[in-house]
Amino acid sequence: MTEQSPASPRRVSKGERTRARILDSATELFSRSGFYAVSLRDIAAHAGLTHAGLLHHFPGKEDLLIKVLGRRDRDDARLLFGPEAAASPEGVLRTTVGFVSRNMRTPGLVGLYVKISGEAVDPEHPAHAYFVDRYRVLREQLSGALTTLFAQADPPLEHDPDLVARQLLALMDGLQTQWLLEPDAVDMYAAVVTFLRQLGLDLDLDLSPRHELADLPAGGT
Amino acid sequence: MTEQSPASPRRVSKGERTRARILDSATELFSRSGFYAVSLRDIAAHAGLTHAGLLHHFPGKEDLLIKVLGRRDRDDARLLFGPEAAASPEGVLRTTVGFVSRNMRTPGLVGLYVKISGEAVDPEHPAHAYFVDRYRVLREQLSGALTTLFAQADPPLEHDPDLVARQLLALMDGLQTQWLLEPDAVDMYAAVVTFLRQLGLDLDLDLSPRHELADLPAGGT
Repeated sequence: MTEQSPASPRRVSKGERTRARILDSATELFSRSGFYAVSLRDIAAHAGLTHAGLLHHFPGKEDLLIKVLGRRDRDDARLLFGPEAAASPEGVLRTTVGFVSRNMRTPGLVGLYVKISGEAVDPEHPAHAYFVDRYRVLREQLSGALTTLFAQADPPLEHDPDLVARQLLALMDGLQTQWLLEPDAVDMYAAVVTFLRQLGLDLDLDLSPRHELADLPAGGT
Repeated sequence: MTEQSPASPRRVSKGERTRARILDSATELFSRSGFYAVSLRDIAAHAGLTHAGLLHHFPGKEDLLIKVLGRRDRDDARLLFGPEAAASPEGVLRTTVGFVSRNMRTPGLVGLYVKISGEAVDPEHPAHAYFVDRYRVLREQLSGALTTLFAQADPPLEHDPDLVARQLLALMDGLQTQWLLEPDAVDMYAAVVTFLRQLGLDLDLDLSPRHELADLPAGGT
């Protein structure tokens, strides 16, 4: 970033379009079958490239996985760590809850996270460090917002913000497994909003997720 | 079961010992690498058998996985659905919380569940139906116990027992992922006990897990 000249114009090259197409293919195949069961050759074929053609753009399957995971996280981070979120702890919680309703429209990507995070508990897995970092960053951001919200409540709420941040992330993850197993039987959004209410936090969130959809990318039901 | 003569004596045959050894090997290898990355030949070699020797005892890898998962669940179910649990909704919750402290001593098996449940959200996965059933059964048992506990509280607690049962299972699952990624940074037991307290349930559970250990199999730290 710092080495890039500020004068260099931004244009989407053919190479970048090819990289985007490879990432789309990798996302789809990893979502369907997890990391280990998919080969670089599968991804190349799906993207309409030769194996060598793919290797020209990405050095290996591990690198591709990290890029696939990072692409979505970058979009989410823009919402969760943007200037609005910094100004408003309610904004952080509302955005987080908004991710849950957005996720209910993207089961393929949710499946990818569930599969890959399951594999990645193994320290040898290429996405292990990625997930360790991801939870740390999300936990700190949520913990900060919760600290303010608990203190601002009247009377102040006596919860441990760091523990609640872990609980909230765990709840969201665990609900995804149940939801993917039985989509019609689980309302992830209601379960998360209810958790915040059980804590005594009322963020003026409707129990129906419809009101959150417009605020997030990948909008439209 | 019904066809077995009540007079037939119970003895552990050589075949049963071999089957147990195969299940031990499969548990260890699946725990380490997940279902897809392990072959029947790997398991046979680990158990000191030929591939054909293994097939004599188990028809395939899918069958072996279901047996591995079922072996632990059978032990847990004896505690969770036994006569004591039926007599006491507190017993069901205490036993469930006890599983969390037991799990903190068996990271390999916890890793197996996290990996396999992640893979098994795919409807084509051989353990898919197993996990759908498992969540249904656990949810019903917890929901029944919570219904009684919420009604018995003074004043009665206004939570939805079925939703809270889903939340509790999700919380336990999601905490496992965070704990496997960063064992020293996450106290799964404290997070679960705190969740029950947040609901207004005080089951006289210490925040330290030591008191629960003696009540469960696989005892000893």
